[in-house]
Amino acid sequence: MIKTSPIKTIHVGILGLGTVGSGVYQILKSHAKSIEEKSGLRFFIKKVCVKNPAKKRRPRVPRGILTRRPSDLWKDPAIDIVVELIGGIHPAKETILEAFRHGKHVVTANKALLAEEGRILFQEAAAHHKKLGLEASVCGGIPIIKSLTEGLASNRISHFLGIVNGTCNYILSAMSDRPYAFGEALKEAQGRGYAESNPALDIDGVDSAHKLAVLARLAFGAEFPFRSIHVEGIRGLKALDVAYARELGYVIKLLAIGKRLRNGLELRVHPTMLPLDHPLSNVRGVYNAVFVHADQAGDLLFYGRGAGMFPTASAVVSDIIDIAKKISQDADVEPPAFSWVSRQKVLPIGNVVSQYYLRFQVADKPGVLGRIAQSLGKHGISILSVHQKEPLSTRSVPVIILTYEAQEKNLKSALSEINKARDVREKTVVMRVER
Amino acid sequence: MIKTSPIKTIHVGILGLGTVGSGVYQILKSHAKSIEEKSGLRFFIKKVCVKNPAKKRRPRVPRGILTRRPSDLWKDPAIDIVVELIGGIHPAKETILEAFRHGKHVVTANKALLAEEGRILFQEAAAHHKKLGLEASVCGGIPIIKSLTEGLASNRISHFLGIVNGTCNYILSAMSDRPYAFGEALKEAQGRGYAESNPALDIDGVDSAHKLAVLARLAFGAEFPFRSIHVEGIRGLKALDVAYARELGYVIKLLAIGKRLRNGLELRVHPTMLPLDHPLSNVRGVYNAVFVHADQAGDLLFYGRGAGMFPTASAVVSDIIDIAKKISQDADVEPPAFSWVSRQKVLPIGNVVSQYYLRFQVADKPGVLGRIAQSLGKHGISILSVHQKEPLSTRSVPVIILTYEAQEKNLKSALSEINKARDVREKTVVMRVER
Repeated sequence: MIKTSPIKTIHVGILGLGTVGSGVYQILKSHAKSIEEKSGLRFFIKKVCVKNPAKKRRPRVPRGILTRRPSDLWKDPAIDIVVELIGGIHPAKETILEAFRHGKHVVTANKALLAEEGRILFQEAAAHHKKLGLEASVCGGIPIIKSLTEGLASNRISHFLGIVNGTCNYILSAMSDRPYAFGEALKEAQGRGYAESNPALDIDGVDSAHKLAVLARLAFGAEFPFRSIHVEGIRGLKALDVAYARELGYVIKLLAIGKRLRNGLELRVHPTMLPLDHPLSNVRGVYNAVFVHADQAGDLLFYGRGAGMFPTASAVVSDIIDIAKKISQDADVEPPAFSWVSRQKVLPIGNVVSQYYLRFQVADKPGVLGRIAQSLGKHGISILSVHQKEPLSTRSVPVIILTYEAQEKNLKSALSEINKARDVREKTVVMRVER
Repeated sequence: MIKTSPIKTIHVGILGLGTVGSGVYQILKSHAKSIEEKSGLRFFIKKVCVKNPAKKRRPRVPRGILTRRPSDLWKDPAIDIVVELIGGIHPAKETILEAFRHGKHVVTANKALLAEEGRILFQEAAAHHKKLGLEASVCGGIPIIKSLTEGLASNRISHFLGIVNGTCNYILSAMSDRPYAFGEALKEAQGRGYAESNPALDIDGVDSAHKLAVLARLAFGAEFPFRSIHVEGIRGLKALDVAYARELGYVIKLLAIGKRLRNGLELRVHPTMLPLDHPLSNVRGVYNAVFVHADQAGDLLFYGRGAGMFPTASAVVSDIIDIAKKISQDADVEPPAFSWVSRQKVLPIGNVVSQYYLRFQVADKPGVLGRIAQSLGKHGISILSVHQKEPLSTRSVPVIILTYEAQEKNLKSALSEINKARDVREKTVVMRVER
């Protein structure tokens, strides 16, 4: 065996001992020996900041290292790395900023904070030549951040499609496989602990949008306001459309989509139809995956557990090890990956060019389909295929149209015309299709 | 935009200007601007060593930087990184060793050399505190080495299954989808440039074994002789078994399998049956993928292009950037990932415990199946299911048996008994099943 340099000890302060925090605490304890063997590093957990130090915990944490004051972390001169795992904007933001100002490196899993206030965090990190580790903020145990920023460093990323929310993917898989209605699938997800009692952040797409913001900045070097991301959730999705999609050879996934076009970025989260042979269409249950197109490496897929105690803690600890290696090598820390970021234009959703799935509910009489086709044609939308389905009531019959690529604003004009027609009995269902 | 440190120039010497070498040369030229923006690094290709400097090349390389002597690379005091892309053992090995001795870092795509003589390369790298970048040696554009060694640094890897040879995967996909016989599929692969005119290294599994050796050392920290890997190729695979597997809900893939068990390692390359819902079963054509089980992060899959000019060159250039960052930070380079490696025992193939697919060709008369079942039972092999197929000739009828998990040496004893029976008309086909 080759002898390595002497063991170095790195001091860590942890803010928050919830699910992920306890996972990090446990891995640093249980894997201390193998981490030391592999990296020559020993970790000493110097302080842990929690709301209630008196609370009984498993694993047990020595009372002496517990504190209620975040400032105890950044003010402790021995601490090298502050690990922020409380989530939310305050006091996470202040703690991270103070940590940089006091010469600490930071690791965080806080996607909301990164998405909404990432710019200031990275400016402060760069100003103090400190690292901000954020692998755990997107897709839990999948090393997607490292792959985008280092593994594919020689590439220009042109687009990515991500299944980045396990709750939604569990619900959509259940709607497709059982099949379940949305409400039943949500209830099952809640029963199994895969959805929170207030699932809004997940099912309305906001959590996916947070992750999209982080991925897009790293993949495209783009700065943009978080609110410029177009977000649609899965709450309104009908079992009927899941079933029809299936019959046509598609599955429906909630995708976080980032595309770099010549005139700007497309950043959008919405339910999307994918053909069954797409690498993402087999990603089931709570699993996450990100499909990436890189100009040199080509198509790639990264798949794994996107959430949960140990997968997320795994990413946090890998970031800690990464930073600790740099500290132990006395390396001048490189400016964080966001430093090459420049302001880029996000295209309005009306500019998106996509194929579409349209479900019309029309009166079952001659001429209706002809008039719909005419309206679509008038707005420059070409029809790929038409599928008339069995009527579900005497009032209307479903007609599915798949279109060729069309610009969304043209589709909207056509649909606002069509939806006004007397023979069209319900608002038309629209879903974007990716391939 | 945040200002980064001043631009640093890193000098590179390239050994070999074949497919991958030209790709590296082109990416370093075409992506110079975006690499500089992202990393603050500028690359200067100081020397390129080729067999015939007079040969016309595209892209054109200035005559002044071409040389025929590998020693011109390691003796040039300005060169920081030597990139070895000639393959084979000699003079690749000598060049890499001399490069370390002369204070250079090294990047290589040479899996054969790493698999067979990796130990000495890593010893020399460690002795001189230099880095050996090897991302391009396994799975081309997929950042699997970085993911195993850094992204999953906080994990213990218990096993991995890899589709690591695009030629074999193309052939197996064609045998399954068209369906083709082995010879037809090989011919098509050759026609499309996916298989060499002498395809032995690929189809006999040796290339996969080279990659398995690299992955196993990194994933398990294991040192072992290359010849201890059990290797079977796909040359003998029958279209019949591909079709039967399909009917039973399986696909056949050539897998590189590494497992860390309590009493040693399993390292084996062979055609393997996978259930259709396994994440690897949808990996088609020339694509590669590695399925990894990590104790904290759980199941992961890494998928992408495993070969080809630009995917492989992408990995080489990402390694170059990685090392250059360390140089520019004046970082004391960490000991290479192999330094924690220790000698580990590789279990003989007879010790492997697996489920099996067995195809017997038997006389179509009563009692034969009973005698086979008896022989299997006598050796402790339990039957999961039996499937009698239509006779293909008057001489024999195929009987498929799927077994429960059994130890390979027991199966072999049972089969050597069964194959001797008069009613068993051909040697029994055996395939291992993973789930």
